[in-house]
Amino acid sequence: MNATILAELGDLLDDAGLIVKAQDRIPYESGTRWDQGKALAVIRPTTTEQAAAALSLCVSYGITVIPQSGNTGLVGGSTPDASGQQIVLSTDRLKAKFELDLDNRSLEVSAGFRLSEINARLESDGLTFPIDLAADPLIGGMVATNTGGARFLRYGGVRANTLGLTVALAQPTPHILNLGGALHKDNSEIDWKNIFIGSCGAFGIITEAIIRLHQMPQQQAAALLIPSTRGDALALLREIETRLGVLVSAFEGMSSGAIRAALDHVSRLRNPFRDGIPEYAILIEISRDWAVREDEIEIDVLLQNVAGEILEQRPELLADALFGPIHEIWALRHAISEGVRKAGSLVALDLSFRRRDVMRFRELAAAFIAENFSEDIEICDFGHLGDGGVHFNLVIPADSALALDSDRKQTLKKNLAILAHTEFGASFSAEHGIGRANQVLYNRLRSADTKALAHTMKNCLCAENIGAASFEPVASLD
Amino acid sequence: MNATILAELGDLLDDAGLIVKAQDRIPYESGTRWDQGKALAVIRPTTTEQAAAALSLCVSYGITVIPQSGNTGLVGGSTPDASGQQIVLSTDRLKAKFELDLDNRSLEVSAGFRLSEINARLESDGLTFPIDLAADPLIGGMVATNTGGARFLRYGGVRANTLGLTVALAQPTPHILNLGGALHKDNSEIDWKNIFIGSCGAFGIITEAIIRLHQMPQQQAAALLIPSTRGDALALLREIETRLGVLVSAFEGMSSGAIRAALDHVSRLRNPFRDGIPEYAILIEISRDWAVREDEIEIDVLLQNVAGEILEQRPELLADALFGPIHEIWALRHAISEGVRKAGSLVALDLSFRRRDVMRFRELAAAFIAENFSEDIEICDFGHLGDGGVHFNLVIPADSALALDSDRKQTLKKNLAILAHTEFGASFSAEHGIGRANQVLYNRLRSADTKALAHTMKNCLCAENIGAASFEPVASLD
Repeated sequence: MNATILAELGDLLDDAGLIVKAQDRIPYESGTRWDQGKALAVIRPTTTEQAAAALSLCVSYGITVIPQSGNTGLVGGSTPDASGQQIVLSTDRLKAKFELDLDNRSLEVSAGFRLSEINARLESDGLTFPIDLAADPLIGGMVATNTGGARFLRYGGVRANTLGLTVALAQPTPHILNLGGALHKDNSEIDWKNIFIGSCGAFGIITEAIIRLHQMPQQQAAALLIPSTRGDALALLREIETRLGVLVSAFEGMSSGAIRAALDHVSRLRNPFRDGIPEYAILIEISRDWAVREDEIEIDVLLQNVAGEILEQRPELLADALFGPIHEIWALRHAISEGVRKAGSLVALDLSFRRRDVMRFRELAAAFIAENFSEDIEICDFGHLGDGGVHFNLVIPADSALALDSDRKQTLKKNLAILAHTEFGASFSAEHGIGRANQVLYNRLRSADTKALAHTMKNCLCAENIGAASFEPVASLD
Repeated sequence: MNATILAELGDLLDDAGLIVKAQDRIPYESGTRWDQGKALAVIRPTTTEQAAAALSLCVSYGITVIPQSGNTGLVGGSTPDASGQQIVLSTDRLKAKFELDLDNRSLEVSAGFRLSEINARLESDGLTFPIDLAADPLIGGMVATNTGGARFLRYGGVRANTLGLTVALAQPTPHILNLGGALHKDNSEIDWKNIFIGSCGAFGIITEAIIRLHQMPQQQAAALLIPSTRGDALALLREIETRLGVLVSAFEGMSSGAIRAALDHVSRLRNPFRDGIPEYAILIEISRDWAVREDEIEIDVLLQNVAGEILEQRPELLADALFGPIHEIWALRHAISEGVRKAGSLVALDLSFRRRDVMRFRELAAAFIAENFSEDIEICDFGHLGDGGVHFNLVIPADSALALDSDRKQTLKKNLAILAHTEFGASFSAEHGIGRANQVLYNRLRSADTKALAHTMKNCLCAENIGAASFEPVASLD
């Protein structure tokens, strides 16, 4: 059967569109960090119509198709399993459309464009797609996983900035769905596009999107704020929001463990802290999306003034504020991910809380770890305090027994996610989406109601043979 | 059968919770403007559980339930038909929950709270739910219809500001869905809440919502801008956005017809135009959501400076700018709706376009009207130029034959909506939602694909017996 499918795909696609050789498949079979599989083939359509036809062909033979975009995800949502029987559909050649509507501040774009390329092309018009993250994914995958990033507080995530979608369905007969359009407002039907955004391809492959653009920031300033205690970080955020409102474009928390990992293991960094590494530090960024005006105070002076006022008037909240070039301040924040990976063996959670619960969970998690593990586990949490998101990373000494015991590490991760969910109603996937890595938690923590809805929609769309994760209504107590 | 149902409802609800008498039903049987029906009864539950139980009881007897919130809608989505066999479920007594999470900037609120009451309660904490509109609806209905309003450009609509929902389903056994929560970010499952937002109750009744709050504007300034020609309004918007970015909180267009209707028929208004009524005027509002600072220029001076610069540097775009107290400037805009209703017989469309197409459609529509109607029809368009929304209102002399011919007026309305859709991909319901009034356009202009999805979801949720509008997959060429 496989030979027949490959022959038919070969008829449909050009030479670069069908990859069968083992060596050429490699980049599509392994993920950014840990996931590794084996595909029957990789297909790379160039148009929506070709994607729909190829997808149909695969699923009509009962082959499971794994949609793959930039393959920068961290939850095993874009790579095949080990069976060698799945086909990867890469969107990396979907680049037919790039239609900027300046007046409408919107862009109609094929799934295969990279975020950096989109923003480079928009720069001369002073516009931007303001999702800011460490990786440089393709836009289709960003929509499919509803990417968040470090400026979510100001701009929202991909969901808030998507107007319309084109989706190739995984049905035996090629079927293309057009959902929404370039309208900023439309209340004339049920908003179906939102069940595709963040679905990780469970219902179909996003081949084009119409995204909402923003004015590019023209003035930015950043500082490191040292709250008097870690617990004061959130009160400090409210104080800042009251004083600077919508100018606040990032409010990123960094624990001492995370900072130390970055400074110890990323040699290009300069240590900005005069009095030793603080228990907790916050990167604040403020932005204006208009050009410098003579009648307005300079933005870095504004930030210094506001920080100075808080230091003077609310010393119980803020202990210190450090200023410097914006790229140096961000460099520390951006280096944490690399730092913690180099610091030891990593257990990484991508959690989201009501904002006040971020710190409460940290205390509970520390107690849980101390009670159940004798190893020297360091909590290196960091992330998006402004929107309640936290990359709750644990660094374990590389030579410890726990580091080598992946089952026990998985259990630790699972139990922390369950603790966060049970005590605080937290999400086990703040912004990474749903992939194989989260399957157990999806099965266990999501409600029977929403699983049933997913099951019905999969059936309705004949989408049984697409996607890495299962949305079946199984209850699992694993 | 009806006596049995009413007896069972009587057992479930208190005296104020079940209205059967004709006289007491009246306020629930007629809408704000034109719709008028007759209900078997009105039920007014006080809790989610009671709503779910009462809803179940009705639908288990095959009775259609019409969800009704503030009953301020304009498309016949909240009133019963004339049969006397439908039951209205009013959410006006759902007021059990009002839980403000200051740290999280979110509010968990029962469906029965009025927008004005919510904002009055939030004021002392400097927060607001920033959906600004002429009516004062209840929050449940705002979510069910995805309300937009005059500051959509800055804050988005209800969809962008809803985090979680509680929904009572219309199933024979009481069933309550909890979707989302108070998290600002959550990618751990398919986002089902968005198919309830803007559904006008087609799938169930929203009994509680968790909404996202914003800093209250602390400084505001407004002006009337007179573009050199109507066609320049959009270029002016881009110029303003470039110079003021996120400070722009409203950009509302008003045609000469709309302005004249307001000035002629709303006696409290002062005419702000020195040189006669312009062909087109724009209300611009800018806002800062932080307190006045000594180191910043006053906001009204900033607006005057920017308008002055554009007058000097881009005279081809801007002919004049008029300043005044902000409430006076808004008074004109807010009076238009009353003015056009008093000016004659009204044909009112709520359209949404790619921003640049608002003016293109106006030209096409004017030609269409001139070609097909001999009556003196005045186009009194106004609305949300900043987001492409336009209240495309036609005023017809009250004594003309057309004014008295409601079939011909309906045809005019339908044909203009079809023209907007066909030529520009416009929406026939920018922000009013889907009700009986839009049924013909839904049937005709929405795709078979999305109708099929709605049909499947109605079946899946056993939601056949709820809602004023039908989402059945019928194709109509009416």
